[in-house]
Amino acid sequence: MNFHILAKLLGLLQLTFGASMLPSLCWSVYYRDGAFAPLASAMAITLAFGAALYFWGRRKDEDIFRKEATATVGLGWLLSAFFGALPYYFAQLSEMPTFADCYFESMSGLTTTGASVLADIEAIPKGLLFWRSWTHWLGGLGIIMLFVAILPYLGAGGRALVRNEVTGPVKEGLTPRIKDTALLLYRLYIGYTVVETILLMMAGMNFFDALCHTFGTLATGGFSTQNTSVAAYYDNGAIEIIILIFMILAGTNFALMYAAIRGRPLKLWKDAEWRFYISIIGGAALVIAILLLSSNTYQAIDHALRDSLFAVVSLLTTTGFVTADFEAWPVSTQVILAVLMFFGGCAGSTGGGLKIMRWAILFKVAQGALDQVYRPRTIRKPKIGGVLISDELQVSTLSVFLLWVLTFLLGAFAIALIEQGRIDLITPFSVSASTLNNIGPGFSMVGATQNYGFFLPSSKWVLSLLMVLGRLELYSILVLFVPRFWRVS
Amino acid sequence: MNFHILAKLLGLLQLTFGASMLPSLCWSVYYRDGAFAPLASAMAITLAFGAALYFWGRRKDEDIFRKEATATVGLGWLLSAFFGALPYYFAQLSEMPTFADCYFESMSGLTTTGASVLADIEAIPKGLLFWRSWTHWLGGLGIIMLFVAILPYLGAGGRALVRNEVTGPVKEGLTPRIKDTALLLYRLYIGYTVVETILLMMAGMNFFDALCHTFGTLATGGFSTQNTSVAAYYDNGAIEIIILIFMILAGTNFALMYAAIRGRPLKLWKDAEWRFYISIIGGAALVIAILLLSSNTYQAIDHALRDSLFAVVSLLTTTGFVTADFEAWPVSTQVILAVLMFFGGCAGSTGGGLKIMRWAILFKVAQGALDQVYRPRTIRKPKIGGVLISDELQVSTLSVFLLWVLTFLLGAFAIALIEQGRIDLITPFSVSASTLNNIGPGFSMVGATQNYGFFLPSSKWVLSLLMVLGRLELYSILVLFVPRFWRVS
Repeated sequence: MNFHILAKLLGLLQLTFGASMLPSLCWSVYYRDGAFAPLASAMAITLAFGAALYFWGRRKDEDIFRKEATATVGLGWLLSAFFGALPYYFAQLSEMPTFADCYFESMSGLTTTGASVLADIEAIPKGLLFWRSWTHWLGGLGIIMLFVAILPYLGAGGRALVRNEVTGPVKEGLTPRIKDTALLLYRLYIGYTVVETILLMMAGMNFFDALCHTFGTLATGGFSTQNTSVAAYYDNGAIEIIILIFMILAGTNFALMYAAIRGRPLKLWKDAEWRFYISIIGGAALVIAILLLSSNTYQAIDHALRDSLFAVVSLLTTTGFVTADFEAWPVSTQVILAVLMFFGGCAGSTGGGLKIMRWAILFKVAQGALDQVYRPRTIRKPKIGGVLISDELQVSTLSVFLLWVLTFLLGAFAIALIEQGRIDLITPFSVSASTLNNIGPGFSMVGATQNYGFFLPSSKWVLSLLMVLGRLELYSILVLFVPRFWRVS
Repeated sequence: MNFHILAKLLGLLQLTFGASMLPSLCWSVYYRDGAFAPLASAMAITLAFGAALYFWGRRKDEDIFRKEATATVGLGWLLSAFFGALPYYFAQLSEMPTFADCYFESMSGLTTTGASVLADIEAIPKGLLFWRSWTHWLGGLGIIMLFVAILPYLGAGGRALVRNEVTGPVKEGLTPRIKDTALLLYRLYIGYTVVETILLMMAGMNFFDALCHTFGTLATGGFSTQNTSVAAYYDNGAIEIIILIFMILAGTNFALMYAAIRGRPLKLWKDAEWRFYISIIGGAALVIAILLLSSNTYQAIDHALRDSLFAVVSLLTTTGFVTADFEAWPVSTQVILAVLMFFGGCAGSTGGGLKIMRWAILFKVAQGALDQVYRPRTIRKPKIGGVLISDELQVSTLSVFLLWVLTFLLGAFAIALIEQGRIDLITPFSVSASTLNNIGPGFSMVGATQNYGFFLPSSKWVLSLLMVLGRLELYSILVLFVPRFWRVS
């Protein structure tokens, strides 16, 4: 490990991150909400830390190797969540009594989980409310991706960095010209942001709420500025539809959508992952609507379809906005929703979870294993969208699936252990699934209408770890715990 | 598919199975319990069906190919559960009002699950009670294995048959001399049976109860003759210890134990799977005991260790005997127990679940995937006990794991769907895990002190299917649903 390179990169990253606190500061000034001092001190400390680290690490330029890149991404996220927690901490909010609460909220924002310790969201100073939603936007496409887009040319080092942050099983398109790619993706991201904000304002939201909900949507985050989440706008169908459509867009591969918008709309339909993604949304929403009607939970078809579609898209894309309390729905619909939580968005989208692409590969592998039983001599490699799935990709996808399940179970056990006697048997599993997959709401004690405030501080650290494990798809965080990884070689 | 061969083999199997009803008939006569007529008619019908099938399929001898062998095993189990249900059905027990109840109880016996629809077990005629436990014994090492051991030399066909029934990821030792292997394994099984029965009688049980509990132990089944399971003997520590030890033996690879007994006891300790198995038992029991003491659920160390060890061994080996209500224990211990339910016994044991060997492979694969991240150029194949795990074995183990998880989730969804409005969110997952892994008790509505009687008939069919899917490790049952499999080629 080359610690100088690591320090230099982390320092630059924190300088960028500290600078990104500026808009929140402006909102704080505009609303005179009393959060100026906490935000300004947090920003100053972050910038000072970033500068110090950068100057210690600065020497003549050296190449960034794979190890340093991995460490930068893993540590970069952990550090950003730390500095992102400072505004909350300095504001001394009554609902965030410990630093664990602040770190949890910050990590939840950056990883676009959207789980909150707050019950009374509307009571929070606007500057902090904006910071909360803004962390979603920063974390959505990725803080490292932003960093690579902004900073002067990093060469192959930029590619190694982004590799560890971009989601999905295959890292195509990560050429050494990664800076250009990052800029293109951010152009689309900003375009979406402008359009959704304007649409939400046209539908009746004020600028502040429109901006915050846009961040929550496009990053598949889920933080709202309302105590009752998007259900607060339930009478305004237009707002719900706008958010629904942009959640679907946010769960779509950004590079694919960029190509589609650039005059190749057929690319979308030809993409096997996207077809699978849309089929899951349509199929699950339909099945749940039928179950809601047949169980007499809902009487009207349009009402059932509306709520089931929103819940499916919100949980599948791992956004976590809520319009209906799905805990009052039949158990069978909850089982579907619980399984969808592990699916997630498409590879290369802002969605969390295991990603649709991995599930497509897993289903093909399962089908292949079944075929093998009665046709042992036929060797037919599984294909997706006409492309062969290599043995290597099969093993690596299955390995991620396995590690994901193990992390989920270990997380549930840790929470059950810490919260001894305070929770039921569903909650540890539910909360582990919800944070690992970067969703936010779950079942039982973290249901659609609840929050994470009641957890003990130790649980909040564990859950923060689960969130970043999920966001970075495990490896970049897990290796930080391997002593050999840190050896100066 | 060669339907004549299939019919001939299935006919022979049902002839064997029908004949195996004789001991129950004897007990019925001995106790004059009024179950003679149901048992005798069931036996007559089974034998007649077997004979008819055999005569239709009989022609000149032909080779048994892989497809026919797979179909024989899959259908053989489904059919045996059907004929095994007849004694219950003809007895018209009040707690088994539908045929679904009888089929469930029969499948639960054969697959050594031990889940029961009965609340008042002691009220059942002794002949049927014996049949219930006897189906455990038959299903333990496998009805196909028994069939191969008894029938005249089947050659390579016998090997193809047993392949589909024997558990675990590698099918070593399945030479064409499979008949000899089967006989050796049955020698050990019968030896265990004799020793445990005598020991239980010495500890104070009568012959009938000793025999039934021995069957339940050695097959890792879990049917008891007492309403409160093994907890009925809680004052008699000797009985509990005997059952505990034989559960551990039943969860051990039988071929390995045979070698150990034949003068090579070191073989046990040198076996990586067995060491892992014993470590899990010791580790989990210790952790649970500590949790029980620290949470003040138990005050005495010996008491906590005794109950935690029994619960761990009973669930890990997938036996399902109960001495303490673990649902009253802290949630953290329940999370451990829930995860152990998926582990199961060693490969080649009578235990269900995914098998210890598969988990050992899975952990090595996970470790390898982690190593790969920071040492991409080093290619180190994972090893178990000094033996390389081939790529093929990795993929096949991961595939079974994946299919297992998918089957578990699909099972939970089916149950939630059928039992709309009648169950909570834990029950479908719990019941799916408990039947797929052939355990018996689970959590919530199928907890340690409950039974499966309240489920709707359709659920009982689904659960029966899950049991046989788990017992035959999926493939031999799944392929029966593939139309192409049935093509006459």
